[in-house]
Amino acid sequence: MLYQLTDILGTVAFAISGVLVAMDKRLDLFGVLIIAFVTAIGGGTLRDLLIGNTPVTWIQDLTYIMVIPITVVLAIAFANQLKYLRKSLFLFDTLGIGLYTMVGIEKGLEAQLSPLVCIALGTMTASFGGVLRDILCNEIPVIFRKEIYATACILGGALYFLLLTFKMPESYAYLSAILLVILLRILAVRFKIRLPNIYRARD
Amino acid sequence: MLYQLTDILGTVAFAISGVLVAMDKRLDLFGVLIIAFVTAIGGGTLRDLLIGNTPVTWIQDLTYIMVIPITVVLAIAFANQLKYLRKSLFLFDTLGIGLYTMVGIEKGLEAQLSPLVCIALGTMTASFGGVLRDILCNEIPVIFRKEIYATACILGGALYFLLLTFKMPESYAYLSAILLVILLRILAVRFKIRLPNIYRARD
Amino acid sequence: MLYQLTDILGTVAFAISGVLVAMDKRLDLFGVLIIAFVTAIGGGTLRDLLIGNTPVTWIQDLTYIMVIPITVVLAIAFANQLKYLRKSLFLFDTLGIGLYTMVGIEKGLEAQLSPLVCIALGTMTASFGGVLRDILCNEIPVIFRKEIYATACILGGALYFLLLTFKMPESYAYLSAILLVILLRILAVRFKIRLPNIYRARD
Repeated sequence: MLYQLTDILGTVAFAISGVLVAMDKRLDLFGVLIIAFVTAIGGGTLRDLLIGNTPVTWIQDLTYIMVIPITVVLAIAFANQLKYLRKSLFLFDTLGIGLYTMVGIEKGLEAQLSPLVCIALGTMTASFGGVLRDILCNEIPVIFRKEIYATACILGGALYFLLLTFKMPESYAYLSAILLVILLRILAVRFKIRLPNIYRARD
Repeated sequence: MLYQLTDILGTVAFAISGVLVAMDKRLDLFGVLIIAFVTAIGGGTLRDLLIGNTPVTWIQDLTYIMVIPITVVLAIAFANQLKYLRKSLFLFDTLGIGLYTMVGIEKGLEAQLSPLVCIALGTMTASFGGVLRDILCNEIPVIFRKEIYATACILGGALYFLLLTFKMPESYAYLSAILLVILLRILAVRFKIRLPNIYRARD
Repeated sequence: MLYQLTDILGTVAFAISGVLVAMDKRLDLFGVLIIAFVTAIGGGTLRDLLIGNTPVTWIQDLTYIMVIPITVVLAIAFANQLKYLRKSLFLFDTLGIGLYTMVGIEKGLEAQLSPLVCIALGTMTASFGGVLRDILCNEIPVIFRKEIYATACILGGALYFLLLTFKMPESYAYLSAILLVILLRILAVRFKIRLPNIYRARD
């Protein structure tokens, strides 16, 4: 129940982030819909494809194909009010990436994959919807350039396996990992922490 | 027979639209070939991947891997004459999206997916080759910005399921849906109908 | 043994080419890592997805997920020295595309696909990591515009099937194909041979 609520809040937050980027590009209604959809389900879809879990999740579970278009319509209708929700949206988004990181890791474990691969799948689930959104909008993905986002997922996933190694019960490790992802993301935004940009000094 | 002819005409029209976009970008011969290929088979390939229908269609049915390179060579050789075929190409392209919408819907039904998902798969089959073409050419997909194209597919697909609900025989519903897609697309182009572009008013 | 060494050298060379493109775009550490990863494993991943060979190779064989991050760290640390390795890197890269072409063809043959499709899969294995790298970096893929690269793979793959037709033992045909890919690529770079760019003359 809590799981499903978080999943839906995360989906809504991801879809709205897609709507906002699409509006900056002045796309038409169909374009906005697709960008919102891809942002919300792109990471999980890519994960499902790579591990061979097909039909992919959003084709089997109709929640997404119902929730996302409704979100898009409401987000467009109340676009000028969205700024008052900025903090709530950031919170939902951050809950979402915490949860999705663990969803991806669990799917990897179900498929009996190694911890390293599971962490990669969790990070992908949480962050590659945004990568696909940016590619469709003809931008270099923002998480490749400035936002701490994937790094929080990677560290949260690593904590999960570390805690399991130390025999912590699975559900505690699960929650601890989600909390670490959320905490890292909030700290990164609050204190404007970024990964170093990498480039060559002039010769 | 009619089915196969329409499929090939659609493939040819899609491939030529890829060649034209690739030539605008002054790609080399290999680039033009790949763009033509992706435009023609990209939508169906994405659909096959999402529902787990692998090896994907063009790997199993060699028609495409034969027809597309021949189309590319002829389109390049007669590039300056293509403008005289503009109307025929538009017609083939429009036949193609009508047919591909229903091909995608049928693949969804075979996999026992819900109508909503089937309509999404039909729309994807007909229109995501163009999306991939535009991404490879470093453009925001044109169907996200101005062309009525996907909307015609969605409405055609919806009509199909509506008619089935009213007990119309399957083959009539199939043809009616294709005709609606074709009609909507022709009307949209004829009367320059577009979806509204969505953006935020300045604060 | 020789096979595995070549595979790792090719992976390293592909990953480094990703690092160099990512540094030109001044991506952050995570961005550089993902670009390197996609460049090295993107072609094989796309091939695996299309033929339904899932979980894809890099999820099953952990070599890649270990070798690539180490390569990235070293490439960043010694970025200014990489220019002295230019020739070695070109050699590894060229060995890599030769080998990957045949790896892709073998995977196609295992799946009992036709020679035409196998050649397409081989070319994709060798060259589509670079295509995905360029898309993620918001560039039109360089192999669509100027580099002879895929063409060498196509001709090498064609030679392989030609030699088999003439009853040459499989291992000789395999090696001859790899050598032809390598030779063509070296000649193309040495003599600045390019495919013609295709565009329309002004009306």
